[in-house]
Amino acid sequence: MSKLVIVGTVAFDAIETPFGKTDKILGGAATFIGLAASQFNVDAAIVSVVGGDFPKKHLDLLSGKDIDISGIDIVKEGKTFFWSGKYHNDMNTRDTLITELNVLADFNPVVPHNYRDAEVVMLGNLHPSIQIGVLDQMTEKPKLVVLDTMNFWMDCALEELKTVMKRVDVITINDEEARQLTGEYSLVVAARKIQGMGPKYVVIKKGEHGALLFHEDNAFYAPALPLEEVFDPTGAGDTFAGGFTGYLANTEDFTFENLKNAVIYGSTMASFCVEKFGTDRMETLDHKEVHQRLRLFKQLTQFEIKLT
Amino acid sequence: MSKLVIVGTVAFDAIETPFGKTDKILGGAATFIGLAASQFNVDAAIVSVVGGDFPKKHLDLLSGKDIDISGIDIVKEGKTFFWSGKYHNDMNTRDTLITELNVLADFNPVVPHNYRDAEVVMLGNLHPSIQIGVLDQMTEKPKLVVLDTMNFWMDCALEELKTVMKRVDVITINDEEARQLTGEYSLVVAARKIQGMGPKYVVIKKGEHGALLFHEDNAFYAPALPLEEVFDPTGAGDTFAGGFTGYLANTEDFTFENLKNAVIYGSTMASFCVEKFGTDRMETLDHKEVHQRLRLFKQLTQFEIKLT
Repeated sequence: MSKLVIVGTVAFDAIETPFGKTDKILGGAATFIGLAASQFNVDAAIVSVVGGDFPKKHLDLLSGKDIDISGIDIVKEGKTFFWSGKYHNDMNTRDTLITELNVLADFNPVVPHNYRDAEVVMLGNLHPSIQIGVLDQMTEKPKLVVLDTMNFWMDCALEELKTVMKRVDVITINDEEARQLTGEYSLVVAARKIQGMGPKYVVIKKGEHGALLFHEDNAFYAPALPLEEVFDPTGAGDTFAGGFTGYLANTEDFTFENLKNAVIYGSTMASFCVEKFGTDRMETLDHKEVHQRLRLFKQLTQFEIKLT
Repeated sequence: MSKLVIVGTVAFDAIETPFGKTDKILGGAATFIGLAASQFNVDAAIVSVVGGDFPKKHLDLLSGKDIDISGIDIVKEGKTFFWSGKYHNDMNTRDTLITELNVLADFNPVVPHNYRDAEVVMLGNLHPSIQIGVLDQMTEKPKLVVLDTMNFWMDCALEELKTVMKRVDVITINDEEARQLTGEYSLVVAARKIQGMGPKYVVIKKGEHGALLFHEDNAFYAPALPLEEVFDPTGAGDTFAGGFTGYLANTEDFTFENLKNAVIYGSTMASFCVEKFGTDRMETLDHKEVHQRLRLFKQLTQFEIKLT
């Protein structure tokens, strides 16, 4: 069974959408990535940090999904990273209300020794220097490294971001960030420039408009599932990344053809995530539901034009 | 061979994009629809009106593509409909600079007698009363009627629009218009409401984000081809409609499964249209190029996940 190292935040979120609002609930990039990856037969471990205020039940939830949590440092005297945001009526844009770094400010990730030979590493959205620090701890070169990042690091840590980009195989990034990073409006041109910066695969996430995978001169497109209502988009991008890397770690096939399948799995997982607040939907998701939704994705995208 | 009646404008356009600007060039919904439909083995006729200022070479272009132009009324003392627009830098939004209705103001379409038994009717974007007038002239009920419309008619002729909607099988509409027509943000909910207004198939066009086809509880998604640069989006929606109806008239298979193929053909045609100003690209397009691009669409969307 492949090992998958997931580095990222484990956090509290407080979310307000047109459908309601939550108190502090379980959130964080690594949480969403881990829950999605746990749908696959992989040996996943989360590397993160929480404070003494972090409830044991949340950690139990993760280990109950067979996710190794020995790499989650618990700083007893500290407080857990907290993010609060409010979505606008279209659910595509949001305002950040509160960001309390807390224990994340001094986060120094330590990959457990028995995961330093992991086949796949998923670098969740964090300061690029922390992401580099994780790669430096790997005793064997991973077969696949996937990087997620955001515009914030382009603004304040661009050089470090460029350094980590040189060491990854796949980057996941949203459309506006791809444009900001390259100064190109066309996503085709932007993806080519990003490939020139390191990653041989570029995944551009477009929210409700789906995701594009680029490799050399080839492109693949996965739509988002058209939904009656999006209840809470929080974590959708991380859930996508978790489905994507979980599938790839499970299959250990890193060809373009198989990355297409991984994008479909990522989109499938993300389509569940947005149905309820926070991690609610992902906590109860089972294989049968995933299978049914993959069938929907096939109906949504596959056609029968015969070409000779 | 199926007959296809295309009703819509044949016009002059003057276009400004970040790549340049044109003088008065050939444009109009029926022009773009006809050029795209002419890629298929169908007996297509355009019903429209032009002024005495309309060059014979434009009419010759259409008849050279085996499009019947006997239904294009030439009002010698009148001037041809003229539209001028300027695209913003993102190419997704535009300002209308000039709209001169001219001969279109008194347009009273007459379907040639030998096309009144056509299997397929494509109602291009026009006043809904004119669209109804065309349907009233058909001596046999068409097997398929496709309606295109726009927000302008929702603002100023909503009741007439609702009347024509009751008599069509397919409506093509963009995402913002679907939302305006129904008051629903979710395109899934909007499409269901629109089906309740008449058309059993709803095609929602999302520009660079592709197109969705809805039928009962089923959905199908075709992306727009990711392009290095979009030179001029004018006519892309009409070209989509022309590829869509041309393919359906040719195959005479109006099942959901075949409408999926029609959406792919529509997206394929539209991907060519935007590569040059106005009708330039569509004028020279040949079957081999269409075939090659369909192959690209397959690579872009088809995947191999096995489901039992």
